[in-house]
Amino acid sequence: MQTIKQSFKIEYNYSIFFTNNLFETANSQLSDFLNSYAEQGFQRKVLVVIDGGFLSHHPDLQDTIKNYFADQVKHIQLAKDIIVVPGGEASKNDPDLFEKLAQAVDIYGIDRHSFIVGIGGGAVLDLVGYAAAVSHRGIKLIRIPTTVLSQNDSGVGVKNGINFHGKKNFLGTFAPPVAVFNDLTYLKTLDDRDWRAGISEAIKVALIKDKSFFEWIEENTLALAQRDEAKMSYLIHRCAEMHTEHIGSGDPFEFGSSRPLDFGHWAAHKLEYLTDFEVRHGEAVAIGIALDCVYANKIGMLSDADLDRIYNVLVKLGFDLYHTKLAENDKVNLRNGLHEFREHLGGRLTIMLLEKIGKGVEVHEMDADIIAESVDVLEKYISEKRVLTAG
Amino acid sequence: MQTIKQSFKIEYNYSIFFTNNLFETANSQLSDFLNSYAEQGFQRKVLVVIDGGFLSHHPDLQDTIKNYFADQVKHIQLAKDIIVVPGGEASKNDPDLFEKLAQAVDIYGIDRHSFIVGIGGGAVLDLVGYAAAVSHRGIKLIRIPTTVLSQNDSGVGVKNGINFHGKKNFLGTFAPPVAVFNDLTYLKTLDDRDWRAGISEAIKVALIKDKSFFEWIEENTLALAQRDEAKMSYLIHRCAEMHTEHIGSGDPFEFGSSRPLDFGHWAAHKLEYLTDFEVRHGEAVAIGIALDCVYANKIGMLSDADLDRIYNVLVKLGFDLYHTKLAENDKVNLRNGLHEFREHLGGRLTIMLLEKIGKGVEVHEMDADIIAESVDVLEKYISEKRVLTAG
Repeated sequence: MQTIKQSFKIEYNYSIFFTNNLFETANSQLSDFLNSYAEQGFQRKVLVVIDGGFLSHHPDLQDTIKNYFADQVKHIQLAKDIIVVPGGEASKNDPDLFEKLAQAVDIYGIDRHSFIVGIGGGAVLDLVGYAAAVSHRGIKLIRIPTTVLSQNDSGVGVKNGINFHGKKNFLGTFAPPVAVFNDLTYLKTLDDRDWRAGISEAIKVALIKDKSFFEWIEENTLALAQRDEAKMSYLIHRCAEMHTEHIGSGDPFEFGSSRPLDFGHWAAHKLEYLTDFEVRHGEAVAIGIALDCVYANKIGMLSDADLDRIYNVLVKLGFDLYHTKLAENDKVNLRNGLHEFREHLGGRLTIMLLEKIGKGVEVHEMDADIIAESVDVLEKYISEKRVLTAG
Repeated sequence: MQTIKQSFKIEYNYSIFFTNNLFETANSQLSDFLNSYAEQGFQRKVLVVIDGGFLSHHPDLQDTIKNYFADQVKHIQLAKDIIVVPGGEASKNDPDLFEKLAQAVDIYGIDRHSFIVGIGGGAVLDLVGYAAAVSHRGIKLIRIPTTVLSQNDSGVGVKNGINFHGKKNFLGTFAPPVAVFNDLTYLKTLDDRDWRAGISEAIKVALIKDKSFFEWIEENTLALAQRDEAKMSYLIHRCAEMHTEHIGSGDPFEFGSSRPLDFGHWAAHKLEYLTDFEVRHGEAVAIGIALDCVYANKIGMLSDADLDRIYNVLVKLGFDLYHTKLAENDKVNLRNGLHEFREHLGGRLTIMLLEKIGKGVEVHEMDADIIAESVDVLEKYISEKRVLTAG
């Protein structure tokens, strides 16, 4: 009998809004968005989930949100309770939290035309996004990222995930949000580590795609390190824009093997795991970028001058570019790291390296000895407290 | 700062193949498909998961599959073990089975470019599809449905799901397979109930979309009841074709409220639950169709003549069109059923009713009293052992 052929396309659209004081009554950005969904004949609802770490710096947030909905959001009903989950990677390791969110969807009657609003750092947004994506086969997700990292990178993308038996993001989906609201005032309460950590994703995307953006970061290294909010706003906007463009114009759901935005990430993932997530994602990415740049330099791909510029920017921002865990059994650990990275992504091992600032190039193998030598170079730089000079 | 707008489309393509004796060495349909994916530079793998109920009728299947892969599939590696899960709705109720499949993905190193092959009835395929969809953010799924119902309906579609705290399909995703292989020889070992049950989905799609297909079923009622395999092949192919066309030309991931393919399903879901799944899905759908047709007749929408024809076809096929659980607290249960149906689908309550054979029409409310009267009518028909005559 004749084969039946199925073919269709699914279109996704969403906006990333930039704002200040999102839940102030005078700010109608979120309420305008929600009210535009009001529809005769049924009641849409909103379930809000907040990162407990963020909440500790914003103790009035739950009341503020309830007041905002009472005043501003006329036709969409806020669920009676706001859910709080612990912040950081811990939220992705605990299967009970996923269970708790799925149960909340059930208890508060959140259906596929209702919304889940996640407020917090990247890890919490990953957890909330996953719970939203699989409950009732997908509830509309609004992300309100509260860190540099989530505002310029993970929070504006299309992925979610939780860990499973120690494997990072083992369970997850590709599920675009319906909107992202980046509130720049939320960055004020970040500690210095989290303020800094997210900058590494901007450096990453600049290095592989946009030399002029890297040069802007280079010129503004000191201001960024000193918490200049206007500069940080620009950095986040430009990074989010490049991240978004890359996803939309490429392979959003990663059917192929190529993952250029994972530049610097293979070693980062392993280092996070080896340090039990004491090293935060953005910090690990900074080390991963440094390691892969030293490697690229060692194999004759990246010039000394470019390596120096990259290394200097990272150091001046305050990143530690070496960790003792990198050197412990480094060949075994890092080889396993490459293997796990490939397995999670699937397909052929594909690693982005730098040819020069602004231009990445993909390779399909890395030499374990040269990786180990690159680790040694990073250690040596640190022990010398080296700030490199070009050439 | 300027809002960033994201927009992209994801394209999905897959084929539904019809075959006999899929795993006979001479049959290259599956091996051709798999071998076409072979690619230099990495090893794709296949993890096979089989429905234990189906396996009990095909005790040699595991060996047959291993031989088939050894002989026919040169560049894709079969995982060393084949996973067996219990058949039927039980497989969707037990969270440990989902866990078992996710662990198997990890143990056997199944990555996003590898395949999971699910072999079994609709419930097992829903479970396997869900595990495949969320492991590593989506492993390629091949469905090999083994029942009439899964070959003509659920197995050719884009959904998966498991139950959660007694809520049917509470956890799930929209995730198209990469291929479906309908082996018609597998129908031989179905018991009479499962042979019959799947026909209700064909009647459903015929009633709302294609009068001539309904008339074909009407003409072949006796042959179908007597297990005529050629007729059943035609029925499955036509039903799968209509199901596929409907999905591809409409709203595949159900962003809107309309779900015409759920004609007859709201009461069916509730009845399955009330009978602890003793009434099988297709059997419940037959009752659901009958109930909604009596209802449509009572409100003056469907003619007596059309109601009689529909009722007669269902009865002659051997469906029981009444269940005592329907009448127990019927107003409360069925009103809850409507409510749960709306909540799972989200949006406005939208129920497909019949205007005439071949033409469905959506309504947004149903009257609980008239539903209860419709249940009474079904009971009366049964107690009279009524086979209706037109008019």
